[in-house]
Amino acid sequence: MATATATIDLNAIRQNWQKLRSMSSNDAAAVVKANAYGLGLKQVANALYAEGARIFFVATAEEGAELRSSLGKIPEIYFFSGHMVGDTELIRNYNLIPLINSVDQLSRHSELLKEKKFGVQLDTGMNRLGMEPKEWENVKELVLSLNPALIMSHLACADEPGHKMNANQLNTFRTLTDNVNIKKSLAATGGILLGPEYHFDLTRPGIGIYGCSPMRNCLPVLKIDIPVIQIREIKSGETVGYGNTWTAASKKRIATISAGYADGIFRVTGQKTRLYFEETGCPIVGRISMDLIGVDITGLNVEPNKLELINSKQTVDKIAEGAGTIGYEFLTSLGHRYNRNYTSVAK
Amino acid sequence: MATATATIDLNAIRQNWQKLRSMSSNDAAAVVKANAYGLGLKQVANALYAEGARIFFVATAEEGAELRSSLGKIPEIYFFSGHMVGDTELIRNYNLIPLINSVDQLSRHSELLKEKKFGVQLDTGMNRLGMEPKEWENVKELVLSLNPALIMSHLACADEPGHKMNANQLNTFRTLTDNVNIKKSLAATGGILLGPEYHFDLTRPGIGIYGCSPMRNCLPVLKIDIPVIQIREIKSGETVGYGNTWTAASKKRIATISAGYADGIFRVTGQKTRLYFEETGCPIVGRISMDLIGVDITGLNVEPNKLELINSKQTVDKIAEGAGTIGYEFLTSLGHRYNRNYTSVAK
Repeated sequence: MATATATIDLNAIRQNWQKLRSMSSNDAAAVVKANAYGLGLKQVANALYAEGARIFFVATAEEGAELRSSLGKIPEIYFFSGHMVGDTELIRNYNLIPLINSVDQLSRHSELLKEKKFGVQLDTGMNRLGMEPKEWENVKELVLSLNPALIMSHLACADEPGHKMNANQLNTFRTLTDNVNIKKSLAATGGILLGPEYHFDLTRPGIGIYGCSPMRNCLPVLKIDIPVIQIREIKSGETVGYGNTWTAASKKRIATISAGYADGIFRVTGQKTRLYFEETGCPIVGRISMDLIGVDITGLNVEPNKLELINSKQTVDKIAEGAGTIGYEFLTSLGHRYNRNYTSVAK
Repeated sequence: MATATATIDLNAIRQNWQKLRSMSSNDAAAVVKANAYGLGLKQVANALYAEGARIFFVATAEEGAELRSSLGKIPEIYFFSGHMVGDTELIRNYNLIPLINSVDQLSRHSELLKEKKFGVQLDTGMNRLGMEPKEWENVKELVLSLNPALIMSHLACADEPGHKMNANQLNTFRTLTDNVNIKKSLAATGGILLGPEYHFDLTRPGIGIYGCSPMRNCLPVLKIDIPVIQIREIKSGETVGYGNTWTAASKKRIATISAGYADGIFRVTGQKTRLYFEETGCPIVGRISMDLIGVDITGLNVEPNKLELINSKQTVDKIAEGAGTIGYEFLTSLGHRYNRNYTSVAK
């Protein structure tokens, strides 16, 4: 089998969420958008539900419908994009809660689904999603009379605890929602770490559940093993891969492994990244191909039949850094070809 | 609906393949690995089959099995990774043709599936897949006695016509296969463009079918439209997105669109990339989020309900270049969330 294996530890996911919940002053939801950050919506959401999560957030109504089909009737499912043209049936049929981002969306929801729950998203400075403060002031009384299920906003710089934007957004959120007796939410993973004044009634942990920065002391969730197709000896001066970009400075042993950028191993992944056999990290040589990567295994005294890309020595955050990005993007870019193996040891 | 739409033109795919076939001295196969370069294995392979393709190449036995289920019994399906441990049943049950890369794989195939077709992949200098020349000399007689269906190799620098590696690999391939009366293949898209001496009996076009470089004068295959969730006015000095990385120098109108790096729009996508409304390209502002992108639409005099990411003005190659990569990686990284719309106008 030349298919790489992604092993996803559902117990680690449960424990990470439990930890984030225990750090939260009040209730904690779970963010499972983008196919549960690439790790599998159905499996991840069911594990979190089994752990006690009853409020979930996704990006779109379509993701909400898929989640409802996986989890059944009980949990609350919010989605960030709000009530868009064409969403009405999905909201009704799958009992979803749109987070209303604009007066336009408010009108649509009031007109088409007056009886159905909704939440409100306020923009407190990120200028991405949510009503502007001025807009909010104009419709606040009307909205509150419709009894929204949640009022929320999102922090732009929560991963940088010292950034002055955090306190600014907190103050704005307070100003906009003071004396409003509705459930409130501001913090995702980064916001939980900023401390209890950011927690309000409900936190929305995402990336921390999946074991990545900015969460600290969380359990790793993902392992990736890649089969070795063949091993060859090359002489000094020989090149490996497309464009002859790598030349052997001496005699080398090269393993060709069966994964590439089509599997989400970014083509820019650099010289810091290693493929592991037990304790030994072996460097990538030559350009990463669509389905194949060359690895210098001269340092090994065995002929491995697989090598590890993600393990305890090379985390998701570390490989992401080696490709100039963040763990979030590595996770959501995992390709569809992996043999996905979900482990869930009894707790 | 906040789901972006990827429109895939199956007629363009057919015409591109037909063109590559007509440029080939003899027969042409079709490479549909990695989910047909991200565009949908079933739909693309069926379109190519309807156009006359009868020989297909994929990366692994698993991909071959999926392709066989889509195309039925007639076509020949080769796969590049060769006969790996665990592949035997798939090869037998789905009638796949492994490209044998090593003596190890040759032994496995001879022992377990002696009666089943196979091809041979030779390494002519890329040091990625295939038997080394020395290995080949040792087993050549034995292999030829087993009557392989194909002998092939792959060019490392075909995208650079002037690279001396091309002639070196051609000469090596000739030396290794002279007087061998078996069907031969060396060229993929780049190799087809290098000229007829590279074509041998069978070419293996891939990226050119999908409308990307190094193919020239091919038809674009992909369009991407992204819904606008909301539009806001911001004042000079306000910031947009994570990390406050972009600050408005004057009053601006910002559209938040519903796609992000989870949809394969690389987070490093840079300042050159535009979102189009008709003829006007609007720049991305702030960091690309997982599900959302901020776009400066100050230059538009309308309120668009969607913007185009890939169209005739901004091709796959161009957006890939803006992210420091190649069209191949953009295509194979397209996320699973798109509403995929296959168009196929009668020819």
